[in-house]
Amino acid sequence: MEVDIPRDLDPEVRADLITREKAYCQELQRTGEWAHIWRCVGQYANISVFDVADNEALHRILWNLPLFPYMTVEATPLAQHPSDLAAQEFTA
Amino acid sequence: MEVDIPRDLDPEVRADLITREKAYCQELQRTGEWAHIWRCVGQYANISVFDVADNEALHRILWNLPLFPYMTVEATPLAQHPSDLAAQEFTA
Amino acid sequence: MEVDIPRDLDPEVRADLITREKAYCQELQRTGEWAHIWRCVGQYANISVFDVADNEALHRILWNLPLFPYMTVEATPLAQHPSDLAAQEFTA
Amino acid sequence: MEVDIPRDLDPEVRADLITREKAYCQELQRTGEWAHIWRCVGQYANISVFDVADNEALHRILWNLPLFPYMTVEATPLAQHPSDLAAQEFTA
Amino acid sequence: MEVDIPRDLDPEVRADLITREKAYCQELQRTGEWAHIWRCVGQYANISVFDVADNEALHRILWNLPLFPYMTVEATPLAQHPSDLAAQEFTA
Amino acid sequence: MEVDIPRDLDPEVRADLITREKAYCQELQRTGEWAHIWRCVGQYANISVFDVADNEALHRILWNLPLFPYMTVEATPLAQHPSDLAAQEFTA
Amino acid sequence: MEVDIPRDLDPEVRADLITREKAYCQELQRTGEWAHIWRCVGQYANISVFDVADNEALHRILWNLPLFPYMTVEATPLAQHPSDLAAQEFTA
Amino acid sequence: MEVDIPRDLDPEVRADLITREKAYCQELQRTGEWAHIWRCVGQYANISVFDVADNEALHRILWNLPLFPYMTVEATPLAQHPSDLAAQEFTA
Amino acid sequence: MEVDIPRDLDPEVRADLITREKAYCQELQRTGEWAHIWRCVGQYANISVFDVADNEALHRILWNLPLFPYMTVEATPLAQHPSDLAAQEFTA
Amino acid sequence: MEVDIPRDLDPEVRADLITREKAYCQELQRTGEWAHIWRCVGQYANISVFDVADNEALHRILWNLPLFPYMTVEATPLAQHPSDLAAQEFTA
Repeated sequence: MEVDIPRDLDPEVRADLITREKAYCQELQRTGEWAHIWRCVGQYANISVFDVADNEALHRILWNLPLFPYMTVEATPLAQHPSDLAAQEFTA
Repeated sequence: MEVDIPRDLDPEVRADLITREKAYCQELQRTGEWAHIWRCVGQYANISVFDVADNEALHRILWNLPLFPYMTVEATPLAQHPSDLAAQEFTA
Repeated sequence: MEVDIPRDLDPEVRADLITREKAYCQELQRTGEWAHIWRCVGQYANISVFDVADNEALHRILWNLPLFPYMTVEATPLAQHPSDLAAQEFTA
Repeated sequence: MEVDIPRDLDPEVRADLITREKAYCQELQRTGEWAHIWRCVGQYANISVFDVADNEALHRILWNLPLFPYMTVEATPLAQHPSDLAAQEFTA
Repeated sequence: MEVDIPRDLDPEVRADLITREKAYCQELQRTGEWAHIWRCVGQYANISVFDVADNEALHRILWNLPLFPYMTVEATPLAQHPSDLAAQEFTA
Repeated sequence: MEVDIPRDLDPEVRADLITREKAYCQELQRTGEWAHIWRCVGQYANISVFDVADNEALHRILWNLPLFPYMTVEATPLAQHPSDLAAQEFTA
Repeated sequence: MEVDIPRDLDPEVRADLITREKAYCQELQRTGEWAHIWRCVGQYANISVFDVADNEALHRILWNLPLFPYMTVEATPLAQHPSDLAAQEFTA
Repeated sequence: MEVDIPRDLDPEVRADLITREKAYCQELQRTGEWAHIWRCVGQYANISVFDVADNEALHRILWNLPLFPYMTVEATPLAQHPSDLAAQEFTA
Repeated sequence: MEVDIPRDLDPEVRADLITREKAYCQELQRTGEWAHIWRCVGQYANISVFDVADNEALHRILWNLPLFPYMTVEATPLAQHPSDLAAQEFTA
Repeated sequence: MEVDIPRDLDPEVRADLITREKAYCQELQRTGEWAHIWRCVGQYANISVFDVADNEALHRILWNLPLFPYMTVEATPLAQHPSDLAAQEFTA
């Protein structure tokens, strides 16, 4: 998810957006749907992993991001890897 | 990490490589250096996150992968995201 | 899904692969998981839409394609579109 | 079809465009020309399949989309796939 | 359409393929389906325009090209241009 | 040739540009220099074939297009294809 | 690191930014963290090598660049090369 | 070198820039540093070959182009080709 | 023009090809059709400028290069640049 | 510089190539022409900086690399950056 907030956006609107984005992100971390988030070094961008019921749920989460209108999002479907220890314990 | 094992590789060599790759991967999961691994849906490829001391350590891990000669690896440096709850607890 | 069968593959192996691929594809059409398949004009490639429970199920289907070792697969997550009439009836 | 409505568009013009786009899309679904529409997860974009008489008809449909001036459209010609069960019944 | 005949192909098989390709191409020019063909300067490739009933017909023509197994084909759907004089006479 | 007229262009200037573009294009069709023009389906773009004396002539034609300042043009040099029937008659 | 300062930025703001960028860059050269900087010929861009404790440190440095809002940054993780003489002396 | 002068630039500023660009370019042709310049057909762009002492000299020339702020420049290092007749005479 | 001679080519065939390529190239330099040739630094590739009657002539020259089967060629049409001093003298 | 040694190369030839490559690289480090070399993390590739008299010298160095036939090299011309402290001392 790459963010590109236009330079001429009202500073208050901008500050409000960023505050709401952080609250939204942390709320979804607490429910467990937003499983991981990392900052891409040197970029206003992140790589995140979501753990959701289905594609509908994922789209709803992304579409409602306060910063969505200023973002470029690319979604890559992931599955359990057969070498993942955590996954093996889960299925044991 | 994308894997492309040549079709004409001796089946025994191939089976041995895959077994050693899995053992190597799980050993590094136990030390905590190979923090996450996911399968890319529909591809012989994975997305992994490593938690290592420095670039030297990461390169040594990747270079010694049994399947390294058949892999295309792309490394993206990641950092803590300011909205990450886990990170905040850690620094508290 | 793009297919690239090596030219030097044994013709019998090749014919057997293609027969099994077709049977596998049609079996999944009957269960409803392989919802659509179209041929890309002028290419040994197809565009397909799958209707599956989750990413695990989709990966299992693709990984077990008889022609999987000769394929390049790219998976794009899709969701219901708010303008889709069929979807609206479904949720009504 | 990717949509990029400029941020500074009059909100009323914008709302009117989106309403007309939806009506146009659903009208063409009823005639059977707009055969399928899916939302690309995390993007203001869709993937659609059209069932039309010829390229002239497809271009006329796309060119007259109310949101056309704000869209990037890429058209890929598709044909029946020989493994498609629905197609086989049709030709039987 | 780009052609890449493997260097180790039997010279007789190669010569036969090229002869049949030319005959096939000229037969379709006579029926009017292969409307135009140009050589891309400095490349073993061509740009062609087809005038066919539908996508099925176009795919059948391309799939049966004697050199198809050695080709990379990209199909772009074209329609009449409103400024095309020939088209205007046709519709007058 | 792809066209991207800015949204904020004066509607009259815009209408005048498009009228002059069409007249210019048809004048060059009558002289035979603008040999072919097709609409790319779903795009404000065309694919054209020019039959001109040399590169200087082609550049002069393109540079003087009324819509040139709003266009992205890519020129591919083409030559007679040895399988082209029309070409063979010409050299006979 | 590519720089793209908008043309309509106030000239004083612009001059101030560039002065602060230079001071910031040279301060980090003195601490040894900004190890190398070269100008890409013919571009308002540079290639730099940083010698920092970890990814967090690198991101903090880049994020605080006075020109960061106008930059496109791409970070490539580097390690010691086994043929590097300087590295060998260091480990001797 | 591709040029993209913004549409809303003051026409006088624009005309002045173009005049100074031409004078600058021809002055460097006379000193022999700007060895060749060609127009890319159908584009506001050129391909040029410079014969300069070193990278510093080349960067200084490009950076001082009157149109530099509106240009995208890509520099490819070239050397004498062993088959070049002119080069052979020079070394004889 | 990029060259990629297969590693398993008979060394004598290879040496003969390279000798004939050089002779062919220098013969066309003497006729003035192969106007310039430069080596791309660090690559088995060159950038050349041809001065030929038309596209047919250029294609014939490239197609008959002894190394053509091992080359990737990309042709860019060039024209006189209005700032080119040599061109101005020519038209004076 | 990316290296791709074919898997079927004789192991002795391979070992000899790598030994000679290292010696060659370190010899040029001692003369100061090969100024820097870093390993790209997770890849059989390096990023190097050369300090040479001109393009001819750089091409001669790269062309004579023992591993050159198995390498993909991309050369980017660099110049002194005006913020580089080392450069300023040099010109003082």
